[in-house]
Amino acid sequence: MEQFKKVAIVGVGVIGGSLALAIKEKNLARKIVGVSRHRKTISLAKQCGAIDSGACDINVLEGADLLIFAAPVSVILKLAKAVSGIINKDCIVTDVGSTKKEIVASLEKIFPNYVGSHPLAGSEKQGVLNANGELFKNSSCILTPTGRTNTAALSKIELLWEELGAKTFSLSPGIHDQVLSFVSHLPHAVAFSLLDSVPKRYLKFAASGFRDTVRIAFSDEGIWSDIFLSNRKELLKAVGSFEKSLSRIKSALKKGDKKLLSGILKKTTTKKII
Amino acid sequence: MEQFKKVAIVGVGVIGGSLALAIKEKNLARKIVGVSRHRKTISLAKQCGAIDSGACDINVLEGADLLIFAAPVSVILKLAKAVSGIINKDCIVTDVGSTKKEIVASLEKIFPNYVGSHPLAGSEKQGVLNANGELFKNSSCILTPTGRTNTAALSKIELLWEELGAKTFSLSPGIHDQVLSFVSHLPHAVAFSLLDSVPKRYLKFAASGFRDTVRIAFSDEGIWSDIFLSNRKELLKAVGSFEKSLSRIKSALKKGDKKLLSGILKKTTTKKII
Repeated sequence: MEQFKKVAIVGVGVIGGSLALAIKEKNLARKIVGVSRHRKTISLAKQCGAIDSGACDINVLEGADLLIFAAPVSVILKLAKAVSGIINKDCIVTDVGSTKKEIVASLEKIFPNYVGSHPLAGSEKQGVLNANGELFKNSSCILTPTGRTNTAALSKIELLWEELGAKTFSLSPGIHDQVLSFVSHLPHAVAFSLLDSVPKRYLKFAASGFRDTVRIAFSDEGIWSDIFLSNRKELLKAVGSFEKSLSRIKSALKKGDKKLLSGILKKTTTKKII
Repeated sequence: MEQFKKVAIVGVGVIGGSLALAIKEKNLARKIVGVSRHRKTISLAKQCGAIDSGACDINVLEGADLLIFAAPVSVILKLAKAVSGIINKDCIVTDVGSTKKEIVASLEKIFPNYVGSHPLAGSEKQGVLNANGELFKNSSCILTPTGRTNTAALSKIELLWEELGAKTFSLSPGIHDQVLSFVSHLPHAVAFSLLDSVPKRYLKFAASGFRDTVRIAFSDEGIWSDIFLSNRKELLKAVGSFEKSLSRIKSALKKGDKKLLSGILKKTTTKKII
């Protein structure tokens, strides 16, 4: 059912492109326009049917009733002010940024109908050619409303994610960043470090366990350095907590204490991921 | 083609069971017998067609022309002497242990036709019910011959793994343990620590990136504490190297230096796993 007349997506990479495809599949918008810094991206996004039209110029955002920022956090922060001069006051605005404190504080001052979103779905593969309209099916999406959030806008954004197949949760931006520092940013930092530390000549002996553990270390370094820096305080705390866990294993290894080591490992093997 | 009359497998868990099934599928043995500490395992291994007969008693190993140890390293070391009193002198002996220095040094003194093997294939799932006759197809298997290794036995073991679908490599036991400390033991230590450090209440927000990164942390703690301790010197060195990589990320985070951080991450995103 058509919920929006004109959906505008700023950044049509793998996430923006998947959103466009999913919105199209569900017939939620009459028209989808895309904005990218690169002409090539716009033409690819059109070719694969994700957007109806697009440009490198933000003026095409005019008249949108839903605007989705799907660019890196630092890019969104730079563009927001200029975009607010183009779209209507009643346009609902959301973003899919992986950190929320900084962006919510900034965007909710600029856009009266802003709601922060973070779909917990993604891929280490980049670009609109890897976009997938099914990406959000059976996924989770965290919304980060605050005291300033317009409740009608919140309901519409909640409904949008649910229509795309995601289960929605609400967390404050600060709590979101704490949780994500552990379940997403820390694993990326660990995977990057792990792949970095292994001598290249050993990699031909890597089996599936290694490959899975470092899969996310093949993600885009531009996006991830951005995410890390935008949540660096929480990430440094999470890294500290990880280092404590690793130290316990190291200490048991140094002591050669099988019972101690086995006990430490058992604590994790019995943990459940719901 | 039948290569062995009686194959004996000590330890019919996921690896021993998969080996039995693969040897059967390829008709490489007239008969397969299994030994386990648990009666239940023997009956399950018989039920799923992995072994023809089995017992908790090592006397059933008598008359084997190929003996495969597929038990944890510490168990193999304890059993070896007693087993050598039961099997014939010309029986070919191998093992599938994940560390090689300790076990090769010990077993090559006890068995004249011993060749160390390490198939780089496995599963975080345990038990013969998770055995899979295809496990070794398109995998790699490291053999660890030394100056003492009987060359006829080496050729037979090499051929065996190739028949099961694995590409074989030869490394000295010491180099094997160095390589594996990086591509297998370190990732496990890191995954265990990562899962340990994440507060339980945050786990419901874990998406596929987190799940893949910690998958191997659900492996058996008994087997892994055994592997870690048996290779603890190399593992501690690998952990040290990992900590240096993580420190570089931490330091860039503390400085808030986007260019530095992006450069560090780029080093890994451009690494290739062959």
